Amino acid sequence: MNPLTSPLLTDLYQLTMLEGYISQGMSETAAFEFYVRTLPDTRGFLLASGLDTLLMFLEQLHFSGEEIAYLAKTGKFSKSLLDYLAQFRFKGDVYAMDEGTVFFQNEPVVRVIASLPEAQLIESRLINILHLETVIASKAARSVLAADGKALLVDFGLRRAHGAEAGLLAARASYIAGFDGTATVLAEPLFGIPVFGTMAHSYIQAHDNELEAFLNFAAANPANTTLLIDTYDVEKGAAHAAEAARILSKKGIRVNAIRLDSGDLLTQSKEVRKFFDAQGFHGINIFASGNLDEYGILHLLAENAPINGFGIGTKLDTSEDAPYLECAYKMVEYAGSPRAKKSPGKNMIPGRKQIFRKMENGIMTKDLLALEDEKAEGVPLLAKVMDRGRRKKAHASLNDIRGHARLQLESLPPHFKALETAPAYLVEVSPSLSKLFPRQPAD
Amino acid sequence: MNPLTSPLLTDLYQLTMLEGYISQGMSETAAFEFYVRTLPDTRGFLLASGLDTLLMFLEQLHFSGEEIAYLAKTGKFSKSLLDYLAQFRFKGDVYAMDEGTVFFQNEPVVRVIASLPEAQLIESRLINILHLETVIASKAARSVLAADGKALLVDFGLRRAHGAEAGLLAARASYIAGFDGTATVLAEPLFGIPVFGTMAHSYIQAHDNELEAFLNFAAANPANTTLLIDTYDVEKGAAHAAEAARILSKKGIRVNAIRLDSGDLLTQSKEVRKFFDAQGFHGINIFASGNLDEYGILHLLAENAPINGFGIGTKLDTSEDAPYLECAYKMVEYAGSPRAKKSPGKNMIPGRKQIFRKMENGIMTKDLLALEDEKAEGVPLLAKVMDRGRRKKAHASLNDIRGHARLQLESLPPHFKALETAPAYLVEVSPSLSKLFPRQPAD
Repeated sequence: MNPLTSPLLTDLYQLTMLEGYISQGMSETAAFEFYVRTLPDTRGFLLASGLDTLLMFLEQLHFSGEEIAYLAKTGKFSKSLLDYLAQFRFKGDVYAMDEGTVFFQNEPVVRVIASLPEAQLIESRLINILHLETVIASKAARSVLAADGKALLVDFGLRRAHGAEAGLLAARASYIAGFDGTATVLAEPLFGIPVFGTMAHSYIQAHDNELEAFLNFAAANPANTTLLIDTYDVEKGAAHAAEAARILSKKGIRVNAIRLDSGDLLTQSKEVRKFFDAQGFHGINIFASGNLDEYGILHLLAENAPINGFGIGTKLDTSEDAPYLECAYKMVEYAGSPRAKKSPGKNMIPGRKQIFRKMENGIMTKDLLALEDEKAEGVPLLAKVMDRGRRKKAHASLNDIRGHARLQLESLPPHFKALETAPAYLVEVSPSLSKLFPRQPAD
Repeated sequence: MNPLTSPLLTDLYQLTMLEGYISQGMSETAAFEFYVRTLPDTRGFLLASGLDTLLMFLEQLHFSGEEIAYLAKTGKFSKSLLDYLAQFRFKGDVYAMDEGTVFFQNEPVVRVIASLPEAQLIESRLINILHLETVIASKAARSVLAADGKALLVDFGLRRAHGAEAGLLAARASYIAGFDGTATVLAEPLFGIPVFGTMAHSYIQAHDNELEAFLNFAAANPANTTLLIDTYDVEKGAAHAAEAARILSKKGIRVNAIRLDSGDLLTQSKEVRKFFDAQGFHGINIFASGNLDEYGILHLLAENAPINGFGIGTKLDTSEDAPYLECAYKMVEYAGSPRAKKSPGKNMIPGRKQIFRKMENGIMTKDLLALEDEKAEGVPLLAKVMDRGRRKKAHASLNDIRGHARLQLESLPPHFKALETAPAYLVEVSPSLSKLFPRQPAD
């Protein structure tokens, strides 16, 4: 039972609810929408990511013989339910906004149209996937805006990401948002994402002196030489790097960059730049890392730190200042009738929705939340991506998604590009949609 | 290439460093230790978790033919390195504190003794696993202390955990810390953790009225009936639940509990309790959920909320107030000689270490960080758990680990059991260990 693909990576209540639905024959068509109720204080917009990961999951979803046998053994489930699950494949329709699209509060990112048990059964993992990637892409977009094309951005966060899948998908989501690559090797064979690497302090420590460590590393990696210079003392480390560069240049090996991983990156980067320039090493780039995030990038670049690239790790991969979103996957229609719950503080809008985005001179001005079949001004954001369990078309390449995200970020109103929180983006509700709300079954 | 097991879920620099080590024949024995430099402001102690997950990972670790072929295709690596990787199995020794042990700043949780390339190659995923489970166990322990045995605690966080592995391992880590179970189904077949479930709002919404939904659910799940009563209106929901309980009792079906998932849980739980008691339903428990954490639990129980169980989700599974730890896996010895780096703000203690814990009347009083082979007062916390790549003994059962964690939490000094941050726990460094520091290679 592989947690990445198993239908048992779900909440128990999905199965107990299905027990009810199957026994009552409640299998009419339901519509569920995934959206974010309110944005975290530190986010003015979100960036959609995870759709392709979700569709791959849905296409393969099934219960293995071992999984059915386990469920049977628990004694909790009826034969009818087990029979239903044994033949289960997801045959629903999925509507979604493109990955890499900017979105705001209450806007459906994904809508699932399927028989009630199907739409229900996929809930936990659907949220788990879309939430993770959207959390990371939205965090990463802030570093991209802060760097403003002036420095390379590389995801360094695998080690403190929350588990294997988080580490891997953080590479994907941050690349979509505009990062240049990741240190995570597996992201290249699985997603085609460029992979970057330097060296660790342990490499220096394992050698008897720093210069020898630099020379050995370069000899073994002549095409990819970034030297970490802060293991003992940055000034001496820079001198060793320069010495290594002189020795290596005679062998035709170029030192591409040095890395600073601690301390005052602003002062150090300026001193190191000055030192290298004075020695004629204008081509040695400076790469910085060490608990950085978008605020660190913005500060360093605003103070003209001569830094050519940033490794952004922990704070990106855990989305440290907003590690979760108030997202939900809610039933908005069942058997042709709009539905909504009315729990205190969590009111929601029933009905199948479309988002129409108005633009002026290439800048987003307003979103309209309307009924799916309404006509309205603006660009509709949701389109059908899966038809009866099959993708409608080959999925977009990751580079196309990344290109789309870049255009989306460029079309943000200027104050949404700043790191400070802007007033919430205007998301209007159409009169027709408003009429559905409040609506509730007889009580 | 499965990210959960693949050696390619690593940072590129591990491979480029190995290129250097292999080409230079640097394969003497190295010691690396995993520890946490400083605790987050909101944590007075940490709880070790993840060792068993790590050992399972190390035992199976190898490069598949497909993975070697991929690495060869990149053109980045030498034939010697590829040959080394193709035959790689982890053959090192591992020393560790038991899972479920309380620990503090600078204390090694795991020590790896292996040839330098082996010890290096496992770094990224070793940190990734130990960090995740320790983050979650340490967060969960705070809810356990807040609940103080007065209410059931269930992990509800899968959907907003950061991916599949985080959701699954959050169930494991929180169970170790003292939670009673999880909603995540897969945690039962994989770990034997008790699984709990209720129903979602969508179940109610799919029915034309709430009473009918309650009755149908109970009929389909007669042994496991918890009714969610806040979909539309808590007062009416409670009335429907009582009505359902009356009807069901005639059929011999018992309503175990109701669930509140929003709004003012204190007021609602008191009103609902009063209402049920007045109707003679003293046996219907109240289960509460909805963005809760240890502070919410403490507050509700301090105000005598008649709540019998809590579902703790997002804030647990993302460790919302401290989503990462300042952990590191650092070389402390190579080829028989102690090693350390001295980067600004990140000084570390070289040498193989042991922790001796002093207790008085069953309460922890002080830890001594000493050399591995020193004799000192107190209980040594680290023991050998893996010998040349094989586990020394069958791993402890999860319930044994959980029992150990309970005793550990009980032996905390009283002010460490409070949620407010206590002054840092006293971790002394032995004179012999101090003599190793500072030590650095010639520069």
